[in-house]
This record gives sequence, C-alpha cells and structure tokens, in this order.
Amino acid sequence: MNMPIETLKWIGDTDGTLELIDQRLLPAQSQTLQCHNPEQLFEAIQTLAVRGAPAIGVAAAFGVCLGVRSANTVLDVMKSVNETCDYLAASRPTAVNLFWALDRMRKRAADFAEQNPEDLAAVFKEALLVEACAIQVEDQKMCLAIGQNGESLIPDGGAVLTHCNAGALATAGIGTALAPMYAAHQNGKKFRVFVDETRPLLQGARLTAWELTQAGIDAVLVCDNMAASLMQAGKVDLVITGADRIAANGDAANKIGTLGVSILAKHYGVPFYIAAPSSTFDLSIESGAQIPIEQRNADEVSNFGGTATAPEGINVYNPAFDVTPAEYITAIITENRVIESPDKQKIEQFVKP
Amino acid sequence: MNMPIETLKWIGDTDGTLELIDQRLLPAQSQTLQCHNPEQLFEAIQTLAVRGAPAIGVAAAFGVCLGVRSANTVLDVMKSVNETCDYLAASRPTAVNLFWALDRMRKRAADFAEQNPEDLAAVFKEALLVEACAIQVEDQKMCLAIGQNGESLIPDGGAVLTHCNAGALATAGIGTALAPMYAAHQNGKKFRVFVDETRPLLQGARLTAWELTQAGIDAVLVCDNMAASLMQAGKVDLVITGADRIAANGDAANKIGTLGVSILAKHYGVPFYIAAPSSTFDLSIESGAQIPIEQRNADEVSNFGGTATAPEGINVYNPAFDVTPAEYITAIITENRVIESPDKQKIEQFVKP
Repeated sequence: MNMPIETLKWIGDTDGTLELIDQRLLPAQSQTLQCHNPEQLFEAIQTLAVRGAPAIGVAAAFGVCLGVRSANTVLDVMKSVNETCDYLAASRPTAVNLFWALDRMRKRAADFAEQNPEDLAAVFKEALLVEACAIQVEDQKMCLAIGQNGESLIPDGGAVLTHCNAGALATAGIGTALAPMYAAHQNGKKFRVFVDETRPLLQGARLTAWELTQAGIDAVLVCDNMAASLMQAGKVDLVITGADRIAANGDAANKIGTLGVSILAKHYGVPFYIAAPSSTFDLSIESGAQIPIEQRNADEVSNFGGTATAPEGINVYNPAFDVTPAEYITAIITENRVIESPDKQKIEQFVKP
Repeated sequence: MNMPIETLKWIGDTDGTLELIDQRLLPAQSQTLQCHNPEQLFEAIQTLAVRGAPAIGVAAAFGVCLGVRSANTVLDVMKSVNETCDYLAASRPTAVNLFWALDRMRKRAADFAEQNPEDLAAVFKEALLVEACAIQVEDQKMCLAIGQNGESLIPDGGAVLTHCNAGALATAGIGTALAPMYAAHQNGKKFRVFVDETRPLLQGARLTAWELTQAGIDAVLVCDNMAASLMQAGKVDLVITGADRIAANGDAANKIGTLGVSILAKHYGVPFYIAAPSSTFDLSIESGAQIPIEQRNADEVSNFGGTATAPEGINVYNPAFDVTPAEYITAIITENRVIESPDKQKIEQFVKP
C-alpha cells in the first residue's frame, strides 16, 4: 500500500537524528522537526509534535538511540540506555506503547551486554538501532494487518465515524483505526468517514481530515457533539477508533470523548470497534480503572490559536483520555484477529504480549 | 434578583433604537450594537450578535417597532408591521419564540387597527412599543419564575452540567437553564457548574462561563466530549439546558450536542432537565421530527478566529440544533410548573400557549 506520510524517520547511522513531522503545525504547515537528543524528543512527545500510541512507541525506541550517541564504552551505553528509558517514560503517562517500546529496548540492551560484554560500544549502538528499526518495521506490518483484518467491516456505500487521529500520523505505518479505511479504499469501496474534530487539540480536524482527503477518501468534518445527531439520523454504520492502553479485561483508554461516542453507538445499535496492536494491551492491569489518565494544561481548552475562548482565569477540567468499558466495545481489531465482545478470557487467549 | 447583564434594551420613544450586547465579541470585548432598522436586527440575529430563543423573541418584537418608524398613517403602520414580521421571521428557522413574538405583535397591530381605525399613526406606534415592552417584562418575570420552580432541583454541594448558553444573555431576564442556578446561588447554596464549551460557536465557553463567573458561581469549563467522563466519575448530579422549540409531545430542539448529553445522562442515571417558557412550546407540531433544523456555514467548524483548523475545502456537516426525544427528559421546568416525564397529555394540560 502506498504510504505517502512518513510520520517519523531515522536519518543516518548510529550517530543519526530522528526526523518527525511536526504535527502541531498541521494542516497549515508541513514541517519536519529534527531531534538530536532525548530532551528534544521528550518535548516533542509532551507537546504532541509526535503523538498516537504506536508512533510514540517507535519514536521512543529511536530516542534510546539518541541517548547513547556520546557513550564510549559498553558500560556507558548500558547506563545511557537505562537513563534514557527512565527519562522518556516520564513524557506521557497513558499510552502503554511508550513503556512497551522502552522495555523492549532495555531488554535488547541487557541481552546484548550479557552476550557480548567485551564488544565495542559502536557495535552495541548498532544493535540498538537495529532493534529500533525492527520496532518501526513491525509497526508498519502491524498497521497493514489491522487494515486487512478490519477491511470487511466497512460496507460499500456505508459511513464510518472516527474520533481523534489513529491514522498514518499516529503510527509508523498506515494507522490503526484508519487502516481498515485505507484498505477498503484500496479495494475500491466507496464510503464516507465522519471525522470528529476532537477538542481540545483538534487531532480529527487537523490530522485525520488531512490524511483522509490526501488519500482521496470522502471525509466530512463534524464537531464532537454532532455524533448523536448523525446516529439518530441513521447516518453512521460503524465507529472505529484507536486506543492508548487496553487493560486485561478489554477496557480501553483512548482520546477524551471516545467513551461518549461508545455510549451513543450502544444506544443507537451502531457497532463500535477499537483498532490497536498487541503492544497497546497492558495485561498487567486488570481493568481500565487502573489506567493513569493524563490531565493537561487548562490553556488547551480556554484558548485557541493564541485567542482566548473563555473568560480569563476560568477553571478548566482537561483530561486527555477516557476509558471505554469493554462491554461497549463490539470488537477489538488487532494485527492478529478481530476479537469480538472482548473479555479477559479472549484477550488472554488471543493477545501475546 | 440583581440583573447586571442587559442583553437588550430599547432606547428612546417610538423613534428609538434597540441596543444589544454584541455576543459575538464576548468575553474578549463588552460592546453594544445599535439597531436602527430591521435589516440591522436581521443581521444581528443571523450572525448571533443576539441569540437564545427568548432573547430573539423579545428582540424581534422591538424589531417590529423599528420597522414602523417611518410609517405615517395607520395603514402604513399596519403594512410595515406585516412586512417586518415576514422579513424577521426568515432570520432563523428553529427557535419558535421568534415566530411567537412576531405573531403577538401582528395580533396587537390587527387588534389596534380594528379598534382604532381613525387613530393617529403615532398612537399606533406607541401601542406597538408598549406591546414589545410587555413581552420584555413578561420574559423577565418568566425567567424569575423558572428560577423559583427549578431551584430545589439543585442540591447544596452538588454539581450541574449545562450546554450552550441559556442564561441572562439568552433572555431579557436571568435566563432559563441558568435561572435555577442563579436562584440557588442567591439562596446561599454552594454548587459547581460544569460548562460545556459548545462547539462550534463556543456559547458555553464565551457566554455561560462569563455570566456564571461574573455572578460568583463556581464554573468549570469542559470540552463537549468530556461530559461522559464526568458522569462516569459520578461528578454530575443533574443536567439543565434550555430549548429552542418543544413539540406537543415534549420532544425538544436545542443547541447541537444536547441530544448526546441527554443520552449520556440517561445512561448514567443523571436527571436531565430542560428549562423553557411557554413561548418555546409549539403545540402545532406533534413531534420533534417536524422541527426545522438550521444548517449553518461550514466555516464555523473548519475555522476559528480566522485561523483554519482543518484542511482547505474540507466537507463539513454543521446542524445548529438537535432534537432530544421527550422520553430522555426527566422534566421540563416552565414558568408555571415542573412538568415531570413530559408527554402530550401533560403538555396539553399544563402549557397554555
């Protein structure tokens, strides 16, 4: 499948840099951002220059490569890996892919140090870069597999509603929630996508609408509060969103507003799907109640593009995510299969962490 | 009750002008707008310089007074009344108070012309101005009565969620949905109001948050898509919104997003109230399916403050209202009483048009 959007790209060898599409500026400006050290990546993650659970994971893996650039001994590399992982893990709390990717880099480092204690630091760094590239390639394949697994859910002539951006910009590949749409489009199906603008940071309006129109898919932008009206009018056949962390029982944290959409879908009998890779499952926690929810700055809600939208000093509640209980989720589309009516048992059976 | 906000004010005698708070500029600027003729008022209504069903009704009544200013004979006045009413009726389609107020002015004119055919045009104009002022005063009293009737629904120490602005700025008085909150505040109750920002035009962020903080009420601004998260966390005790038109069976049109809030409230067992005067009921239509829903310009959704929030040329769906079925409404708070579980029979019995 054609992949015109390169959300992130490693440039150079072990002393290279990580280039990101600066998603804060889209769609007005298409600019890239170069990260030369973990501090720059930390800021990029925290300010959402790069966002989307899988993309954050891949970026963090390369972030470890940035962190070891100046290390000169195997011991130094090992120390830098651990320091960089601890540091980047604090950038955002909710998406588990971040921790998953950092743990994988830590494990690769520990394995290398154990197996090759006498090797050169340069070889160690190369092994880490290879691991980060592997995570990236797996992410691309994972997206394609989710697309294939979810494609048949989209009816020809139908309409999908999506919330936030779980597209190419949220991954190293063609996305999670948007992957079945890209696959259906490639198969010649005609359908419409209603795109929730997704306040406060407008990832739907800025990113999803941009991605879909670039791909030639019929996208219609709506405010978040219009989903009920669309469903009441019978205009939505299914909902697909991504996820930032899925608990062992199937409860799924995703962008704020997803819970409301799932309840409306349930109310109107519209199937509600979550598309996410295995790396988004956190089998260490029993239910969504244990997922930490990031509270973000009040300014995101009370301002827009530097203009105040509310009286100065107004109190604001600004959780970045909410948790959709498993029982509202028709199925979870993973790279391996579609898990219908997800629960603890099925997730244990079908998700290999 | 203290009424610091004068949403609209007639200045002068029969050749006077209608002064409006320009609600397009709030909260950044507190400016008034002078309407000297129906055309200026038409534009003010259409661009939401004045908005809110009751306020539009009162403004339109004064608009008739603007329309007859240059009429020199009783026949001319009569003709101008009808022309102005036809003209202003086309400004916005959904709120029925507009048509209610214009019909009342037409009726007053017809009665006057029948009873005083030989009188002076000046006396006729005075009679019309008296009628418009009467509509204004009744609106103020109606707001106070809604406040009294709804006050007991707000628990001390509790939290209310509201959508859009149905406050002082939406009426000639202290509002409809906000009236019970103003009354409870005056009675010394402590409570919190979660204010949905209300995309696309942000009447919640710009107007409700401003009104409530001016009055010293604890207001917390949220994005529309956060209501589900708040209710899931048990943070909302009740919802109160206004309405733009209520059908004979109790179905209520209100600002886009209200339907979704009502479904979430139903889902979480949170009482959902609508506060509206008798003039908002349209007993000529059986159900909400017959309420015309205004579709507004795409720019409202795809731009903010002159900045594009979405790719150029994106398709947009932008209905200004949605319809909440009567069965999701716990009660309608009118100036006469609280109508629990509203239906055709109760509305027939308790609402005198």
